[in-house]
Amino acid sequence: MNNFNWDSGFLVDFDTTTGVSKTAKTTQRRLSQMKGMFYDEKHTDKILEKEDPVIYEFYELGCPERAGDLAFGTTILYPGKAGNEYYMTKGHFHTKIDTAEVYYILDGEGYMVMENLKGDTVEMPMAKGQVVYVPRGYSHRAVNIGDKPLILFFTFAADAGHDYGTIETKGYHKIVVEKDGKAAIIDSPRWKEAEV
Amino acid sequence: MNNFNWDSGFLVDFDTTTGVSKTAKTTQRRLSQMKGMFYDEKHTDKILEKEDPVIYEFYELGCPERAGDLAFGTTILYPGKAGNEYYMTKGHFHTKIDTAEVYYILDGEGYMVMENLKGDTVEMPMAKGQVVYVPRGYSHRAVNIGDKPLILFFTFAADAGHDYGTIETKGYHKIVVEKDGKAAIIDSPRWKEAEV
Repeated sequence: MNNFNWDSGFLVDFDTTTGVSKTAKTTQRRLSQMKGMFYDEKHTDKILEKEDPVIYEFYELGCPERAGDLAFGTTILYPGKAGNEYYMTKGHFHTKIDTAEVYYILDGEGYMVMENLKGDTVEMPMAKGQVVYVPRGYSHRAVNIGDKPLILFFTFAADAGHDYGTIETKGYHKIVVEKDGKAAIIDSPRWKEAEV
Repeated sequence: MNNFNWDSGFLVDFDTTTGVSKTAKTTQRRLSQMKGMFYDEKHTDKILEKEDPVIYEFYELGCPERAGDLAFGTTILYPGKAGNEYYMTKGHFHTKIDTAEVYYILDGEGYMVMENLKGDTVEMPMAKGQVVYVPRGYSHRAVNIGDKPLILFFTFAADAGHDYGTIETKGYHKIVVEKDGKAAIIDSPRWKEAEV
């Protein structure tokens, strides 16, 4: 699983435009693995009757979860929509919550949707050549609003850990949908319902 | 000095080929600031009689040195030689020595010259589209062996700190020089002398 020597250094390739590596392997996230995360469940089910598209893939290099190490890789988030909601990553908090993450956008366009435990929300527009700084304490989800893959190079503390559960059960307050032919950030219907 | 909000997130641009930012400012390192680091001091002095070239520049965004934050930016290392020794960065240990650093090579070619306190040395060839993982405990110096700028995107723990002193006084065991028209890694004459 881990061919990289984290104690004496190593090289690994990531194409600076496509994010693809010839030596590392990706983990894929398909629509079926994100059931219930897109608000339009009917349309999600409709897609799944025909196919189970890859929504995104990312490289895990097997970095040991040790203090002082840094995990890194690329995420390739494909273009598309479930209903009118753009394809997105699951999103996660870090288990060690006060740890930041750096995302360098190599290609494509989208949003980084962020939210902390107090419910403060921030949406950062992402375009090629921008770095998004995800501050300590903020969960984060990438959304692809373009018509080609969104390519992100990420780095975070190896001992930060990932907490997907919080987001899987509650979702984000804000979602990104297509409205009148362009991207719009709206309140999540799921949160609205919960507040009624 | 610091226009970036490390608590609620921010965007900053770095061209994915040149490393240049329109919003951040660089710190320049000129040859006169690296006196004594290139082994051929005579030739270094000869250059300085005529000019004081910029050897490299890098972006510092003023990241607070707090646990959980990540400092990042680009380094632009120009092509050239002092004597037959290729232009290089000063190189540094992290003050908090067991902290890694991730370098993503956006353009150019060179070597990452690394060395730990035990004297173990590692030289990693760098080319566009490669990531060099600088492991915990290793000081690191970039060397440009090409004929265009070497562009590096770096990330490290914000509280890692920089220790230049150790390298400024002792140098590295290995240096990279041009020999018969190509790059060669050789023992540093300064260390050889010390061992006689």
